[in-house]
Amino acid sequence: MIEGSKEGARLSGLATDLYQLTMAAAYLANERHERASFELFVRRLPEQRSYLVVAGLEQALSYLRNLSFSDEEIEYLRGLQVFAGISPDFFEYLRNFQFTGEVWAMAEGTVAFAGEPLLRVTAPMTEAQIVETYLLATINFQTLIATKAARIVEAARGRGVIEFGARRCHGFEAAIYAARAAYIGGCIGTSNVEAGKMFDLPVFGTAAHSFTMAFDNEMDAFRAYFRTFPESTTLLLDTYDTIEAARMATQFGPALRGVRLDSGDMTALSIEVRRILDASGMQGTKIMASGDLDEFKIARMLSDGARIDLFGVGTELSTSRDAPALGGVYKLVEVDYNHRHDPKMKMSRDKATYPMRKQVWRHSSSDETFASDTIAIEDEDHSPAEPLLKRVMSNGQLIDRLPGLNESRLRAAEQTAQLPARFKALDNPAVYPVAYSEKLEATRRALLERLAHSTV
Amino acid sequence: MIEGSKEGARLSGLATDLYQLTMAAAYLANERHERASFELFVRRLPEQRSYLVVAGLEQALSYLRNLSFSDEEIEYLRGLQVFAGISPDFFEYLRNFQFTGEVWAMAEGTVAFAGEPLLRVTAPMTEAQIVETYLLATINFQTLIATKAARIVEAARGRGVIEFGARRCHGFEAAIYAARAAYIGGCIGTSNVEAGKMFDLPVFGTAAHSFTMAFDNEMDAFRAYFRTFPESTTLLLDTYDTIEAARMATQFGPALRGVRLDSGDMTALSIEVRRILDASGMQGTKIMASGDLDEFKIARMLSDGARIDLFGVGTELSTSRDAPALGGVYKLVEVDYNHRHDPKMKMSRDKATYPMRKQVWRHSSSDETFASDTIAIEDEDHSPAEPLLKRVMSNGQLIDRLPGLNESRLRAAEQTAQLPARFKALDNPAVYPVAYSEKLEATRRALLERLAHSTV
Repeated sequence: MIEGSKEGARLSGLATDLYQLTMAAAYLANERHERASFELFVRRLPEQRSYLVVAGLEQALSYLRNLSFSDEEIEYLRGLQVFAGISPDFFEYLRNFQFTGEVWAMAEGTVAFAGEPLLRVTAPMTEAQIVETYLLATINFQTLIATKAARIVEAARGRGVIEFGARRCHGFEAAIYAARAAYIGGCIGTSNVEAGKMFDLPVFGTAAHSFTMAFDNEMDAFRAYFRTFPESTTLLLDTYDTIEAARMATQFGPALRGVRLDSGDMTALSIEVRRILDASGMQGTKIMASGDLDEFKIARMLSDGARIDLFGVGTELSTSRDAPALGGVYKLVEVDYNHRHDPKMKMSRDKATYPMRKQVWRHSSSDETFASDTIAIEDEDHSPAEPLLKRVMSNGQLIDRLPGLNESRLRAAEQTAQLPARFKALDNPAVYPVAYSEKLEATRRALLERLAHSTV
Repeated sequence: MIEGSKEGARLSGLATDLYQLTMAAAYLANERHERASFELFVRRLPEQRSYLVVAGLEQALSYLRNLSFSDEEIEYLRGLQVFAGISPDFFEYLRNFQFTGEVWAMAEGTVAFAGEPLLRVTAPMTEAQIVETYLLATINFQTLIATKAARIVEAARGRGVIEFGARRCHGFEAAIYAARAAYIGGCIGTSNVEAGKMFDLPVFGTAAHSFTMAFDNEMDAFRAYFRTFPESTTLLLDTYDTIEAARMATQFGPALRGVRLDSGDMTALSIEVRRILDASGMQGTKIMASGDLDEFKIARMLSDGARIDLFGVGTELSTSRDAPALGGVYKLVEVDYNHRHDPKMKMSRDKATYPMRKQVWRHSSSDETFASDTIAIEDEDHSPAEPLLKRVMSNGQLIDRLPGLNESRLRAAEQTAQLPARFKALDNPAVYPVAYSEKLEATRRALLERLAHSTV
């Protein structure tokens, strides 16, 4: 359905902000062809978030491999007022454009923290600049959702969480990638069929209130559905009266796969529905809950003794409603200029950055849990700590097969398990220790001093 | 770049929740072929929102016209466990599937309120059900962003607002439709080039900090950019020192189109920068502000005397960050069953609905401002009030050409202008009066009574 999501499909070079293209034109016009390095990182984690689960790398790399400018797109640019006086060389450059750079990145499913580069691009200045917007939109969004999913899955304490939010997503493409990212973050599947097909995710579905309402009475609706799906029916109980509907459900016996609660006091209802089902020998019939759930409600229900086996989570998960934007940025850290490696940093008071190409090293405790991270200059060695950024693309080509989605999901599960509990508290989690290396701090101080003298 | 956005491109029937397809299968298996009516409405407006600006109808109707199931998609469904025992008739039905229904809707740009149907689908039960998820994702999202844009544009009191948020959107398709919806809501354009091309929106761009940083000093960067774009350069001033950079900018004289402030105390900075520019005869050089702006910050800056001509608004606008999900729902209101029109409603305590196909009537005051709305049964006549729902699709085909984007944007501007100021306050706006008609209330009471007797 969406071209860009298929391997090999062309992706438009126009999928960017205009200033990326005007800057590219200015670099070319001023013969600035040198290579530059940009790092993508999140300055501050959103409120209540104490870690990130990285996601979206596969789509980011697919974009870099398939990016080009069609004749029609170039004609469009040529017609824009801003490009009226520009040299034809610029359009010729775009016609031959392909991404030729190198990318280092954390694998999807990696647990990461504020300030840590999740991805680094080294490429000719123009290329590195043009790709900024799409890379940010992709990594910001999927990381946002994988992170939220990990919190919800943590709160569900082993019970399955299913992504249910397509209808409230920011359009249907957002729904597809929300389902993907939620799966990496630990969900067991999604209600989104297109996402299921595209990424081979388990898909789940029950029935809606409208189905019950379409029949003259509830029992007729239940019978009609069960007759059609004798082995996989989950009956929705709350269209009229949940407890009454649960009693009707017992007529189907142990073959009934499940029931769903979608409103009311779900803790109390789940206990009573469980009792009704069990009294009919339906111990195997699962109870699913849905309806504006989030990690806090799930944690409370479970600690109150709710008898719920599965959670369907929509809006709160699929839009990360309490923190719906991840502030990832993409900052210039180095320019290879006249055969020098020039470290670069932004000095604006509230948005200053760290210069140089970096590596993130993760130190573990003797019990294999994560202890702290060091952000260092790329050529430092902090072993036996583990370096998290790997080279994934060279000369615009993938270096290795990317991990499959199940591998990324497993990595997220392992990584979050290695994160000590105090960093995973739903409320006011502790801040995981991340420090810059001494060498990086010293380099930065020297550069600050140099810039202070040269620019004013 | 995105197939679904092009007229006539096929849209996948899998772009839905699994339960829509299982319900469709159950309807077919139980020979329930009757027509049903569903209405899409927003139960409660998000916090701080007092009205909606409807958007997304064009994409919703394009989806309905181009929806089908390919052989590959049908094979995928056939392979799912849940459909293992289903009759082949279901797959044959999908193979021939097209949407044949009727749609009534509010035009894009219409101001609407909680409880009001924004769109109604009447179609054979299975068709009406399958399309729910995509319609909701589309209308919810674009209406969310158009509404947020209208608030921000209101706060900017006539100054231009440009949509800048692609990098924080929920993926790049979300960015494209955010730009479209923001334009309907009153923005003057976007930084998103792909959206600009797709919808013929004005595109805007300046330069990034990285551009300045890529040169040995700031003045070199400014010169390089200005040389390339002598007629359309907006210099970014805050990479090192904003006031110092403003002084450098005066070297380019009145030909300099604009400057941009992106951090710091922008009210104070804008006043000082304005003074510096004016002292060099650069009264025509515009000052743009950007950097985590929202309607409240903009209102405060302007009331504090900021000298800003243009606002670039990103994350807060393009993700509607303070209220990132619109809770639009799609509810069954009538089934044409055995030659009867059966009104339908949901009774769950906290989610009860109103039955019957409806019309929304808008009453205006003598000064042409909006006074109140009435939600009535479709055949009631409340003229001279204006009926807001029009029939836009019949037998799956558009009835008329849809309004162009500029027409929708103009409608939004006119409608918000007709909304009295007390309903547009940024903080604690008054609640616009919307009532159900007496006839609708009476019909609902009668149905409630009937259901109370029949279902238990």
